[in-house]
Amino acid sequence: MSSQAPHPTLLIPGPIEFDDAVLQSMAHYAESHVAPGFVKTFGETLSMVRKLFQSSNPAAQPFVISGSGTLGWDIVASNLIEKGENALVLHTGYFADSFATCLETYGANATQLKAPIGERPSFEQIEQALKEKPYKIITITHVDTSTGVLSDIKRVAEVVRRVSPQTLIVVDGVCSVGCEEIAFDEWDIDVVLTASQKAIGCPPGLSILMLSGRAIDTFKTRQTPPSSYYASIANWLPIMQNYENFKPSYFATPPTQLVHALHTTLSQITARPMSERYAIHAQASDRVKAAVAELGLQQVASQPENQAHAMTAIWLPEGLAPPDVLPGLLKRGVIFAAGLHKQVATKYIRFGHMGVSVTDPNRSDVDKAIAALKEALTEAKQAKGL
Amino acid sequence: MSSQAPHPTLLIPGPIEFDDAVLQSMAHYAESHVAPGFVKTFGETLSMVRKLFQSSNPAAQPFVISGSGTLGWDIVASNLIEKGENALVLHTGYFADSFATCLETYGANATQLKAPIGERPSFEQIEQALKEKPYKIITITHVDTSTGVLSDIKRVAEVVRRVSPQTLIVVDGVCSVGCEEIAFDEWDIDVVLTASQKAIGCPPGLSILMLSGRAIDTFKTRQTPPSSYYASIANWLPIMQNYENFKPSYFATPPTQLVHALHTTLSQITARPMSERYAIHAQASDRVKAAVAELGLQQVASQPENQAHAMTAIWLPEGLAPPDVLPGLLKRGVIFAAGLHKQVATKYIRFGHMGVSVTDPNRSDVDKAIAALKEALTEAKQAKGL
Repeated sequence: MSSQAPHPTLLIPGPIEFDDAVLQSMAHYAESHVAPGFVKTFGETLSMVRKLFQSSNPAAQPFVISGSGTLGWDIVASNLIEKGENALVLHTGYFADSFATCLETYGANATQLKAPIGERPSFEQIEQALKEKPYKIITITHVDTSTGVLSDIKRVAEVVRRVSPQTLIVVDGVCSVGCEEIAFDEWDIDVVLTASQKAIGCPPGLSILMLSGRAIDTFKTRQTPPSSYYASIANWLPIMQNYENFKPSYFATPPTQLVHALHTTLSQITARPMSERYAIHAQASDRVKAAVAELGLQQVASQPENQAHAMTAIWLPEGLAPPDVLPGLLKRGVIFAAGLHKQVATKYIRFGHMGVSVTDPNRSDVDKAIAALKEALTEAKQAKGL
Repeated sequence: MSSQAPHPTLLIPGPIEFDDAVLQSMAHYAESHVAPGFVKTFGETLSMVRKLFQSSNPAAQPFVISGSGTLGWDIVASNLIEKGENALVLHTGYFADSFATCLETYGANATQLKAPIGERPSFEQIEQALKEKPYKIITITHVDTSTGVLSDIKRVAEVVRRVSPQTLIVVDGVCSVGCEEIAFDEWDIDVVLTASQKAIGCPPGLSILMLSGRAIDTFKTRQTPPSSYYASIANWLPIMQNYENFKPSYFATPPTQLVHALHTTLSQITARPMSERYAIHAQASDRVKAAVAELGLQQVASQPENQAHAMTAIWLPEGLAPPDVLPGLLKRGVIFAAGLHKQVATKYIRFGHMGVSVTDPNRSDVDKAIAALKEALTEAKQAKGL
């Protein structure tokens, strides 16, 4: 069906398989970043980012910036918190450690609230922590790609607004935006940061953020200047506002081709209700989780309510490591990822199931992957005499 | 000849027209950033960056990072200079002001050595300034895109090494790398930072740098930690070293499609001696400059020796502003840029002539643009009764 060259199906937790039209947009001919054609494309893209976050509050502002998802952490850390202020970092895997390091780089005091691997901090623990000291921001990894643990943003936000209403709620949505429900306005979130290459289905290279009016006010009333230049909201805010109003504007050259690709994928995504998209991902996830259980395997994420719908982190049978299984998958045309959480990286594999692999009815990527996993595991066990 | 959709020829100082093969690489199918195929592509790309800078010193290190060219300033400012240390910024237009602001954001004391618009600081002024106080770094905009002024990196570097040998020589090569001569090792440069979308001929979205061993040692012996996370050399150095040795490595997801496009264009560029590429750009530039003179127009860059070879900034005749001329060019299928230097932005236009527009013998972009400029000017003068 696809016009793409034959290749193994990429089912890692990002980058993911791309729609043909998205890849064609990547090959868009050269355009000036300040000419009417591109300005319109960029402006429409920003408006669609609002829809992606189910936000209609004009005080909120979307940002699309050249960089990887990681850049979003710097944008938060260098603009929304100042030296010596406190950040509460909810830890559900690798990415909380890194976000905390980023916050500390810019002078914040980061306190990590850790849960055992595969778990998430309880709402009671979060409430308790918020009562202990004033936190300028709380960060929550919506889906930690290293563990597949899903956080309950809605309920965490309720706790924060009840216990510490001034604390900015920052969601790392790198592996969730586009497949896990996010109601930016309704849940009263202050920041969602994400990247282009996961459930949004665009190639990597875009840092995408949504900031609430409260977050922008916090930035505007800083005591000290922002501590970054490229990541400075002061530099980007007028640019994004101008483009969204179809006025060209310059701070740094936008990645024109990637913006076209984002425009294409967001046009596809926002053409249907977001709730429908979430449901399709949940159904695919249920199928994967059932197949994993049928194979007698456990997930890293311990409970149905904390298991992501975009990916599944699967404990390997005792005696097997990722290099025993991944080549067997590749031989069958499927690519999974190895473990990422340092303490247990050799003991599990990660299966990404998001974007066109689950939304395109002409694709059977998930079924193919489940069959390949079954065969590759059998083969690996036989090879090891297990 | 091209497989691209019909479009006006983009002759601004970046982004520029792209080769078909480069755009096709942008549409590369999804790949894991840690799988052997992409690791090989990225590793080879980094090796070719060395060739682009005519560097063979193993102590030097290329970096290719998701971001715009502007990010390169943050990498310099947050890693190579510390709070309270001095930076000497040679000013030849808009981009020195911005680089100075970036340096100050991270706590450096930036002293700008300014020249009148269209000029550059003299070697005597630079020597004098270097003798006045100790400078940790000196920054030089190789080609300031706002004025078309070319700096003489080789001679500035000689002055620095004679007068203040420990000062790091930082070249902003955003509009020069790929068309103006740069001999990284021979000239004893410490940093060249650039972007993908100018003379390198790749779409925008990559920050590309080359750091000397001296620059890396400076970073490693900092008194204080680097003041950025995303721009931290500590985070990127092992990644780049690993990929160049064909080992996968993770700090942030690389923009896989853009790296493929960079690989394609660098394969084309490095297939021939760099000296040949510089000569082709110089010849095209001479043709443009002669045509501008024939039209009775002056350049913003005042003297042949300080005029860039990648672009020409052209003063408009008295009474004409960019909006009087640019639509006439567009009507003839050519896009130039308006002025950018705030003090004189309404008085000049900018003509970019680099990459495939001058190197591909099947293209006649430059001749077409010269003819269009002549006609558009005549038309604009008539419309204004000049």
